[in-house]
Amino acid sequence: MSDPTVRRQVHRWPGGEATEDVLAVEEPLEIRVEGQSVAVTMRTPGHDLDLATGFLYTEGVIDGPDDLLAMAHVSSPRDRKPNTVDCRLAGGVQAHREALRRAQREIYATSSCGICGKASIDRIHVHAPPLEGARTLDPEVLTALPAKLMPAQSGFARTGGLHGAALFGFDGTLEVVREDIGRHNAVDKVLGWRLREGRVPVDDRILLVSSRAGFEIVQKALVARVPVVAAIGAASTLAVQLAAASGVQLLGFLRADRFNRYA
Amino acid sequence: MSDPTVRRQVHRWPGGEATEDVLAVEEPLEIRVEGQSVAVTMRTPGHDLDLATGFLYTEGVIDGPDDLLAMAHVSSPRDRKPNTVDCRLAGGVQAHREALRRAQREIYATSSCGICGKASIDRIHVHAPPLEGARTLDPEVLTALPAKLMPAQSGFARTGGLHGAALFGFDGTLEVVREDIGRHNAVDKVLGWRLREGRVPVDDRILLVSSRAGFEIVQKALVARVPVVAAIGAASTLAVQLAAASGVQLLGFLRADRFNRYA
Repeated sequence: MSDPTVRRQVHRWPGGEATEDVLAVEEPLEIRVEGQSVAVTMRTPGHDLDLATGFLYTEGVIDGPDDLLAMAHVSSPRDRKPNTVDCRLAGGVQAHREALRRAQREIYATSSCGICGKASIDRIHVHAPPLEGARTLDPEVLTALPAKLMPAQSGFARTGGLHGAALFGFDGTLEVVREDIGRHNAVDKVLGWRLREGRVPVDDRILLVSSRAGFEIVQKALVARVPVVAAIGAASTLAVQLAAASGVQLLGFLRADRFNRYA
Repeated sequence: MSDPTVRRQVHRWPGGEATEDVLAVEEPLEIRVEGQSVAVTMRTPGHDLDLATGFLYTEGVIDGPDDLLAMAHVSSPRDRKPNTVDCRLAGGVQAHREALRRAQREIYATSSCGICGKASIDRIHVHAPPLEGARTLDPEVLTALPAKLMPAQSGFARTGGLHGAALFGFDGTLEVVREDIGRHNAVDKVLGWRLREGRVPVDDRILLVSSRAGFEIVQKALVARVPVVAAIGAASTLAVQLAAASGVQLLGFLRADRFNRYA
């Protein structure tokens, strides 16, 4: 079952009659490296290998296609849904032990100096240093992007419940769109797709998200070396701080006739 | 610094002039139990003790106010922002060791039978059995709720970047609203507030979220014994499955003139 949407019976009010509605599918995906569990994320099925690849890439476990020897869904007689992806890495688990531990512990990690946005930014710069230089952006190209994303978000159109992420060239050409119930997953899917295509870093693209831009979205973009992040929604303070400290250009409230430039 | 919003300089296009915009604050919060790190969540400062309490409650670590002996922000000379909350529990860490381990490992936990939505639901029913019976709901009361939530979401009005969660009586009386950049955090804040008020389980209220309703929102409601979850946005398949299997009434796309009833 890898349909991103599914028909379910619902009762509508007013009226009250039973009718069919299209829902966004949410199922857990376990990402393993050589049998060892690294993460479980609630995701929308479809493009699971892109998602697992993007997760390992943006968490700093792998840097390029050469690090990824093989990956596949695994199943057992009792596990009928394809909800587990196992990956084999060059050099084996041992070579990536530190990075895997960091990925597993990221959200629990604390530094001895306490925890704050500044410490979170410093921790990311250890394995993803700031970008150099800044691309000149054409406002006419930027404001045309939302109209190109919308028709490509087929799942959102049907359910209203999926986030979209897309990569665009600096001339506004759409390269890839992915959808997911989790906005971080949608970003991992587009960046993972690029790695599987053998084309990383992603330093030649604009990342557009249909949602808000928080810290983790900018973090993932920085690790993949994406120079511009644009959001249809708002940006958070920590997203702006990270972007400013990292040379990532961050735009919010991107619409057909306007946007805000935060960093 | 516990302001949920902050003014920052942005450049608006068209125009391009530097101007001020109001951003939603995002900072990490570390939740500790007797000095031991349990979780770090990216949250909007404010009502941190409600958030930490709600997290421990909805993750099954504590069941009521008697389990919580004390809690406070802790800081160090190098940690100037109040981004760490430490909690002391009745019975000490030892008495809650299993639950803490489960809370820490929840998102990494895998069962030997593989991973799927059904397994996720079964795991929750171990410590949060299904609710019995179903409240009769008045559609006129339900459709009036969004109009009561909006004016109470002061942070969203200023930033467009905060999610809201609220508890309402079955007569439509607003009890409490909390906002956060993370929608799960907003829910933890209202449920944690109730526990700190000494009034759990929350079996006498409707939980309204300004966002979509995914699996984890319904999970948190179930643990707190909330019988009705209403979302302004869409519901996911796994949220519907969990609600149906747990006796939680789930409504989506709640507006002034309509809603969908999923379970």
